[in-house]
Amino acid sequence: MALIPRLDVAALDALPLDPLTKGLPYDGPTMRVGDVGVQDWSVLDGDLPMPVAVIRQARVQANSAWMAAFTEANGLLIAPHGKTTMSPHLFDLQIADGAWAITVATVQQMQVCRRFGVRRVLMANQPIGLQAVKACFAALQDTSFELYCLVDGDEGLAQLAEGARLNPPPEDNPLRVLVEVGFSGGRTGARSRETALTLARAIAATNGLMLSGFECFEGLLPTAEAADGLVNEVATLARRAIEEGLLSRDHPIVVSAGGSAFFDRVGERFNAHEFPFPVLRVLRSGCYLTHDCMGYAAAFERICRQTQLALPPGGLVPALEVWAQVQSVPEKGRALLTMGKRDVGFDAGLPIPQYWYRPGSDMAGPQPMSQGYKTVALNDQHCHLELPVDSDLQVGDLVGFGIGHPCTTFDRWSLLMMVDETYRVVRAIKTFF
Amino acid sequence: MALIPRLDVAALDALPLDPLTKGLPYDGPTMRVGDVGVQDWSVLDGDLPMPVAVIRQARVQANSAWMAAFTEANGLLIAPHGKTTMSPHLFDLQIADGAWAITVATVQQMQVCRRFGVRRVLMANQPIGLQAVKACFAALQDTSFELYCLVDGDEGLAQLAEGARLNPPPEDNPLRVLVEVGFSGGRTGARSRETALTLARAIAATNGLMLSGFECFEGLLPTAEAADGLVNEVATLARRAIEEGLLSRDHPIVVSAGGSAFFDRVGERFNAHEFPFPVLRVLRSGCYLTHDCMGYAAAFERICRQTQLALPPGGLVPALEVWAQVQSVPEKGRALLTMGKRDVGFDAGLPIPQYWYRPGSDMAGPQPMSQGYKTVALNDQHCHLELPVDSDLQVGDLVGFGIGHPCTTFDRWSLLMMVDETYRVVRAIKTFF
Repeated sequence: MALIPRLDVAALDALPLDPLTKGLPYDGPTMRVGDVGVQDWSVLDGDLPMPVAVIRQARVQANSAWMAAFTEANGLLIAPHGKTTMSPHLFDLQIADGAWAITVATVQQMQVCRRFGVRRVLMANQPIGLQAVKACFAALQDTSFELYCLVDGDEGLAQLAEGARLNPPPEDNPLRVLVEVGFSGGRTGARSRETALTLARAIAATNGLMLSGFECFEGLLPTAEAADGLVNEVATLARRAIEEGLLSRDHPIVVSAGGSAFFDRVGERFNAHEFPFPVLRVLRSGCYLTHDCMGYAAAFERICRQTQLALPPGGLVPALEVWAQVQSVPEKGRALLTMGKRDVGFDAGLPIPQYWYRPGSDMAGPQPMSQGYKTVALNDQHCHLELPVDSDLQVGDLVGFGIGHPCTTFDRWSLLMMVDETYRVVRAIKTFF
Repeated sequence: MALIPRLDVAALDALPLDPLTKGLPYDGPTMRVGDVGVQDWSVLDGDLPMPVAVIRQARVQANSAWMAAFTEANGLLIAPHGKTTMSPHLFDLQIADGAWAITVATVQQMQVCRRFGVRRVLMANQPIGLQAVKACFAALQDTSFELYCLVDGDEGLAQLAEGARLNPPPEDNPLRVLVEVGFSGGRTGARSRETALTLARAIAATNGLMLSGFECFEGLLPTAEAADGLVNEVATLARRAIEEGLLSRDHPIVVSAGGSAFFDRVGERFNAHEFPFPVLRVLRSGCYLTHDCMGYAAAFERICRQTQLALPPGGLVPALEVWAQVQSVPEKGRALLTMGKRDVGFDAGLPIPQYWYRPGSDMAGPQPMSQGYKTVALNDQHCHLELPVDSDLQVGDLVGFGIGHPCTTFDRWSLLMMVDETYRVVRAIKTFF
């Protein structure tokens, strides 16, 4: 399968940054995104206000390479979910490592991809409403741009059919549609095999649309075993549709699934099915890129323990941290830091204090935080940290926090800092939430 | 007390909007903030992509006016917390209604205020770190800008003293400092009366700083009675400092407190204290402006029931809503909508479906949602809505959600839409998170 071209990072780096952007030094001049990396700023030396969200370059590159090796070794493709980072800089890293497409959840996210040159987008969602449907068909007028999206019912299909009628796509660039397969009590997705097949037939018969396969999102299921069942259903449906002649070998056929928790099971199940001709098995994990210290860390441990797939050397490591400064130690056993709900996600657990550094000291670099430090609360702009009795944490000290569920930390920042292993800023990471 | 001047909203309205901004129609031209209000866009007619965050103009104006009347009737001042909205458009409304200052939590927020012309800022936080302290003293070089900030301990004071030494403020524009009073197990703030007084003496003796009073944040306390005690302590400390000659009548003396849950108790307690000369009693509530449908709604009911203060006619009403579109009704009793954790706060409760509208129907306007509709989960980009058995909610229908804790909904949007009572957009509300 042809790779998609690298992105126009120069256009991104040329964007001006409002000096009011959270994360930039105060009272600085207006600079461009690309200027940030040449300022020689050091997080540890206090060149940046706190809090600051940092991405460790070596780690994020290693994660991207690991996933590329993993998918290649197992006959899979990856269309990384872009909603996690909404950062074209990071999309470009993923594309350089062989991503088949970028996945998005919304039309606004698709537009961000288009602006910076993503040539293939998988919208893992059903476009609904005048604005969304119109934008999809407008995008297809550019025949160098390829769009896959989902449908899970007649109403959604009717909206796409009407969109295609009003604004027909070029004959060689139809809207490629995957039928979404769901489960009772779950999110979107057809609830039965028969519903999904009926829908597939209707899509195949609609002008301007091309039935391209089936998909599911198994990430909300409670266990790997439950995920297996849903993924099997997707593969079974694809086989049935091929047998029925609804899917042709003249165009790419896709089966897809995948959050970041069960991507091994997705690969195993897809690989267990045989198809009469080539089918693209597409994972859509997004969180693997920066990984985390909580739920995805645990999920990856299970994967490494259980999977039958080939595991490349190394593995995923947490690459996203938020650093904050101790603002007050108002009583024994408690410190308050300059980081709050505005700065870090908390839906998968409170951030974990992991590193510690005292600016102006002779410390060689950040030290691992010893036992007994624990985030006990977040307010909008404050972090309440419990300290062990013998702590000598002081006002002005820096603490680096590990996070859970990267999506809800990324979306608190329109600008993150990519750093080297000494926490010097090597480039700005612009996001578009 | 002199009012502060209105803001430079023209500068704000002249800012260009990236067409990729979430909330704007797709594929639109680059427009300026001020252009949005003259497009004649209608939320109900489908002119905007979903989800969209809307502020109901009549309601937000009524809330602002109500708080102005309330504070005036009770001898109080308000420095609304700007962190809630981070919107200079809304700061300007609050200033037009007599706000004494704008409160902020961080230096980045102070810089936003300065850019658009807020002439008095109360930073309800202790500035810590090279960047933050330097920016405070740099700001004071402009003698038309007045800054109050907090100190809660010797380390914080030492950082401010060093900042004043390196970059002395003009003699007539010192950094005005309030001693923060806290409570055991709470957030920042001196833990005892003696600590607070000792700190007050040290501030009064520091070049470039001016002791200006005392404050607390009572919002984390569990009951109104507990809040009473802390607020009393602030007033008592101010009296003691006046008696000791640490506070002079030649400069404004401030006692301040106030989240949005107990602002009545703050006013009652402050008013119960007599001072030998005028003292400004400053509330810092922020959430009152848009109010909510959850915690603050309940808190306001208690206030109306219990307070001894004068209550103007009317009262606070919820003014911030997020509208989303039904994307799928994949099984009986469940709909999925185009709104997720990226679009609406969830830390004070899941959003409440309140209004319903079917685009293209002959409905006169949004109808109240009947009983039995309930948000049961949010994913990053999806809302799971439970429906009553007899629901005829359809794919494409619009649902308007009420929110809790406005701070965590505002910060998901760099652009909100101010609408009239027919949900036509009357202006863009730009935020700076």
